[in-house]
Amino acid sequence: MGSRTPENSDLKKERRTCTFNPLELTVFLDGGRKKTKERRDIEKYFLSDPELNDPVPMDFLSHKEKYEETVRKACVVYKKLKEMRKGTGSIDISRENIITSVIHSILKDGDPFSLNNVMMIPVIIGQATPRQQAMWLQRTINYEIIGTYAQTELGHGTFIRGLETTAHYDPTTQEFILNSPTLTSYKWWPGGLGQTTNYAIVVAQLYTQGVYRGIHLFMVQLRNEETHEPLPGIKIGEIGTKLGMNNVNNGFLGFENVHIPREHMLMKYSKVLEDGSYIKSTNEKLAYGGMTFVRVSILKVVSTLLAKACTIAIRYSAVRRQSEMKPGEPEPQILDYRTQQYKLFPYLAASFALKFTGKWLLNICTEVFSELEEGKLERLPELHALSCCLKAVCTTEAAQGAETCRLACGGHGYMMCSNLPSLYGLITAACTYEGENTVLLLQTARYLMKAWQQAVGGMAMTPTVAYLKQAVSGSNGTPCWEGSTACIVSAFQQVAARKVKHSADIMGQRIQEGVSPEDAWNMTSVELVQCAEAHGRAILVERFVAAVAELNVSVALKTVLAQLRDLYTIYTLLRNSGDFLMYTEMTPLDYCNLQNRMETLLSELRPNAVGIVDGFDFHDDIIASTLGSWDGQVYDRLFAAASKSPLNQDTVNESFHKYLKPMLKSGL
Amino acid sequence: MGSRTPENSDLKKERRTCTFNPLELTVFLDGGRKKTKERRDIEKYFLSDPELNDPVPMDFLSHKEKYEETVRKACVVYKKLKEMRKGTGSIDISRENIITSVIHSILKDGDPFSLNNVMMIPVIIGQATPRQQAMWLQRTINYEIIGTYAQTELGHGTFIRGLETTAHYDPTTQEFILNSPTLTSYKWWPGGLGQTTNYAIVVAQLYTQGVYRGIHLFMVQLRNEETHEPLPGIKIGEIGTKLGMNNVNNGFLGFENVHIPREHMLMKYSKVLEDGSYIKSTNEKLAYGGMTFVRVSILKVVSTLLAKACTIAIRYSAVRRQSEMKPGEPEPQILDYRTQQYKLFPYLAASFALKFTGKWLLNICTEVFSELEEGKLERLPELHALSCCLKAVCTTEAAQGAETCRLACGGHGYMMCSNLPSLYGLITAACTYEGENTVLLLQTARYLMKAWQQAVGGMAMTPTVAYLKQAVSGSNGTPCWEGSTACIVSAFQQVAARKVKHSADIMGQRIQEGVSPEDAWNMTSVELVQCAEAHGRAILVERFVAAVAELNVSVALKTVLAQLRDLYTIYTLLRNSGDFLMYTEMTPLDYCNLQNRMETLLSELRPNAVGIVDGFDFHDDIIASTLGSWDGQVYDRLFAAASKSPLNQDTVNESFHKYLKPMLKSGL
Repeated sequence: MGSRTPENSDLKKERRTCTFNPLELTVFLDGGRKKTKERRDIEKYFLSDPELNDPVPMDFLSHKEKYEETVRKACVVYKKLKEMRKGTGSIDISRENIITSVIHSILKDGDPFSLNNVMMIPVIIGQATPRQQAMWLQRTINYEIIGTYAQTELGHGTFIRGLETTAHYDPTTQEFILNSPTLTSYKWWPGGLGQTTNYAIVVAQLYTQGVYRGIHLFMVQLRNEETHEPLPGIKIGEIGTKLGMNNVNNGFLGFENVHIPREHMLMKYSKVLEDGSYIKSTNEKLAYGGMTFVRVSILKVVSTLLAKACTIAIRYSAVRRQSEMKPGEPEPQILDYRTQQYKLFPYLAASFALKFTGKWLLNICTEVFSELEEGKLERLPELHALSCCLKAVCTTEAAQGAETCRLACGGHGYMMCSNLPSLYGLITAACTYEGENTVLLLQTARYLMKAWQQAVGGMAMTPTVAYLKQAVSGSNGTPCWEGSTACIVSAFQQVAARKVKHSADIMGQRIQEGVSPEDAWNMTSVELVQCAEAHGRAILVERFVAAVAELNVSVALKTVLAQLRDLYTIYTLLRNSGDFLMYTEMTPLDYCNLQNRMETLLSELRPNAVGIVDGFDFHDDIIASTLGSWDGQVYDRLFAAASKSPLNQDTVNESFHKYLKPMLKSGL
Repeated sequence: MGSRTPENSDLKKERRTCTFNPLELTVFLDGGRKKTKERRDIEKYFLSDPELNDPVPMDFLSHKEKYEETVRKACVVYKKLKEMRKGTGSIDISRENIITSVIHSILKDGDPFSLNNVMMIPVIIGQATPRQQAMWLQRTINYEIIGTYAQTELGHGTFIRGLETTAHYDPTTQEFILNSPTLTSYKWWPGGLGQTTNYAIVVAQLYTQGVYRGIHLFMVQLRNEETHEPLPGIKIGEIGTKLGMNNVNNGFLGFENVHIPREHMLMKYSKVLEDGSYIKSTNEKLAYGGMTFVRVSILKVVSTLLAKACTIAIRYSAVRRQSEMKPGEPEPQILDYRTQQYKLFPYLAASFALKFTGKWLLNICTEVFSELEEGKLERLPELHALSCCLKAVCTTEAAQGAETCRLACGGHGYMMCSNLPSLYGLITAACTYEGENTVLLLQTARYLMKAWQQAVGGMAMTPTVAYLKQAVSGSNGTPCWEGSTACIVSAFQQVAARKVKHSADIMGQRIQEGVSPEDAWNMTSVELVQCAEAHGRAILVERFVAAVAELNVSVALKTVLAQLRDLYTIYTLLRNSGDFLMYTEMTPLDYCNLQNRMETLLSELRPNAVGIVDGFDFHDDIIASTLGSWDGQVYDRLFAAASKSPLNQDTVNESFHKYLKPMLKSGL
């Protein structure tokens, strides 16, 4: 999948000495030979279009130019998507996932059309009546109209009950009247909302018959389909520049007496009748499935972004030579420095941990959702707790990883053309969106506190918290510290269980001392967050171990994946060594042995590092990095990228004559 | 120092209940009432100039427009600087420091003129002969010419012996001939080099009489002073967009047989005579003083940037309300959440730790440099070791702090108008420039390994490593775990000493097993980095304790600063709890007691958090944040900032008619 320029000799050597076949890893990650071919064909279909080349690299453009260029490219892409669908006739979900991922890679710093696919369509499917679906679904799938999802407000984020936008029902006209009563009630953040979308699902507080009815969803047309002018009463614009995702066209939206027909409230569950009577949903939780699904999907997204960052940093580290290890010898590849391996390989391993766990969680999610359709709700709380803490732990870990990769590339990692700053921008955004991480961890902590009470009470436990039972008895399970995989998994669970117990104990103590439960919760929240994190880490470690145990691949590949598993588990343990010294039988000597083992693993992985990232099989146009392309021609690419700077098109910039020369010539 | 818009009522309340006088803190930080007045006057002198207002916020501009606008503003600023100097007649260093800091705040995302002050002038003073100084010094001080410092190359960073640029002396013409023999030898990164500067100090490998003479510095004219055209043989341009500092105009520079006069080699120490004879400097170390000084200055720079980030996050957290703590009650200020306090207050404390340590290190630096002038070199290695590990530890800590502040502001922290992304961009750059952090930590580790041998050998120790002696005997000094300040300082030293011992032990063991010393060093480098970090942390903690002990302020202020000291030391200890459980007598119970103490400190600091950041006395135009201004009118400012987006000037962007409508209308 490489480009055709000659391969850097260091990378060539790395590839020659790799002990496994990277293509086997590629096929394994894609899920089969056919899937690999399908993905590559789709990539080729899109990436071979010359209209998708940037005339000038996007980073040099103004904010407005970036938007316009993004819309141009997005229209090329989505037209090709329409063509493609025309050819196949129907929509294949797994194929759509590949396509979405390719589109996101092409529209690197965000896609103003994407919320139409990611939120609008799923929400219509999940929340609209069949009659409503008939009105809107096909039009959004066809991209005849383009929608977004407007929930967050200027003054209100993760806590959706605090939203201020109102929808009052008027039975005389059979319309809802939407209003933004305050500045803080303006919708703020929805992707594509600024200048792109013409429809939105709007989340608002419903009032009918003078009674408050809670949060509901409304389909609102924002702009005239022919002229794109905002409709009367719609105040709309974009919110400005951001750390990353600058092509998403995040927008704001205010309502001034905007009238919409009664049929535009999404009524699959709750309903408002013509006279304003309100029929409450039999189960409110059904409305929140969509958010859980998006949260679960984030694991896969950030695992892929982290894998890209690792690919860039590892290839660059194989090409870059610096300092001297032994006097008189040539400068070594920086990948030979133990400190560089220690920075990069654990996060390379983490990208697999996130990938395996993400896949497992998605399976659970699919199961639970199909149970929901049958009215079974039992597993929903567990899924919710899992999705909250895993989203938080995985995005944090991926963000740290991407930033570590960037810093490991020195000054060149600071350049936009390395693509590392953008990858970090994309990942770190996920620490905040779809539920701010700390808030999510506290939601999982609430579940863990309930689970702890169940464990203490000897009640039946859901599978992912069953390990808490051990800690109730006060016994520590198997006190083995030989460092086996099984022993490490149980140590992670023991740490999580003891932290849960500790939090429950001090909270209980505070309540006994007369503190209100709410204040006790807040006072204990630092520990509660930490116990949810420990729970998340225990699951990640367990899932990595389980995934490697189930592998059906060659011995050569399995050996490498087992090394990555061991590195991930041991590295994570050592980084949290305080917990293990506090809550397990681990001794300082065990710690030193694990440190040795970890360093051996770094050596063992060294010869295969380039092979592993080659196995990710990222197309050069998707990696989009001067430092990370397949051929490793780092310096030529850096120079070529700089040459494209508009500032370099003239030998003298006009600011010299206008400003600089007069300043230099002005006397003291 | 606030703006004149009405103050947000929550902030008003915070200010009313503050238990100390923020102005006292301001005066203390400035170093006296007069200094505060002087600083405020200088700020007013610059900031009141209407020519410094941005017609359009810089973030919306293209890369080229940003450069041109920056040069415009920089010329306004530096003309004012010339005016100011005209008024005073002479240059006052402390006043210049204030001015530099104000200028950096005005030219937020980098100043293309600054290397003239930061590197060019000091290098001329430090490395040029009196005759050379007469040629260039006054012209650079007067900004008649404008210079940069060209050391780093495309393929060569921290390891300066690896530089490839050559300077061959030709005695027939008495000139040096500069060349860039490879692509990787192109100078890459110097600030202002792209389109701004017309002179540079160039670092190159010297050859005379056919013999290699090592690295030397050369004054090179790059551009014609009248036309600004690059001189013959000079290949010059800018390197492109970056994560931050996009207005610095970082450039590249190649030489093709560029001839410069013999007098243009800086010859204060080493010399080349007319016939090409080379006279070596009696002490090569004298040439490196400048880099140490810049490294030391970074502590102050990042401490100030971190203080800005804390100011923004804490004011915003006092204004932002979210979720509910108790059913039915209004949404609380997010600053009341313990988890928010836990994110922000330790870094608020860290900004003081960095400030106190930076001041102490600068004093040592000044002392050592004046000893150097007298030919005394004894303290140079200790200063070098200190500057390396403290630069690394402080920049890493400040970067984590700024990013934690950003994330603690949720989605709004992701917006450029919060100024948090830029602050992070400025700080994280310092993790790489002036010596990459890992490389620097390994330099300190080398010093610590030597110091350890001295301690084992019972030799005299330099003051900052004297604590290693304790660990030699194997005794642990005072095994007190009552959590007193003195006990904690000695525990930090004990951890560092034990880590030094551990690294020395395993390295020795490896060498005994037949590994070469160089390989053993590399194999042990993860531990070596960690022992240098532990040493740096021990110094930060000790300096904070010492600074608070010496305070001459009111009881009210001292109480607050002592709380910050305790929070910093305990938080840092808890974050590294594994080390303390491994290497000191700290027990799990001690850990829990310290955790309680930390939480109490968070409560105690809560009422004064806004007062403390008010005490930093950042002018609103210097904070430059929609979230962090004095009045706390967060939402109005966010909305006003968005309204300035060029995309919001038209109701319909032209891309709708050009691209979007045709795509929407194209059939499936």
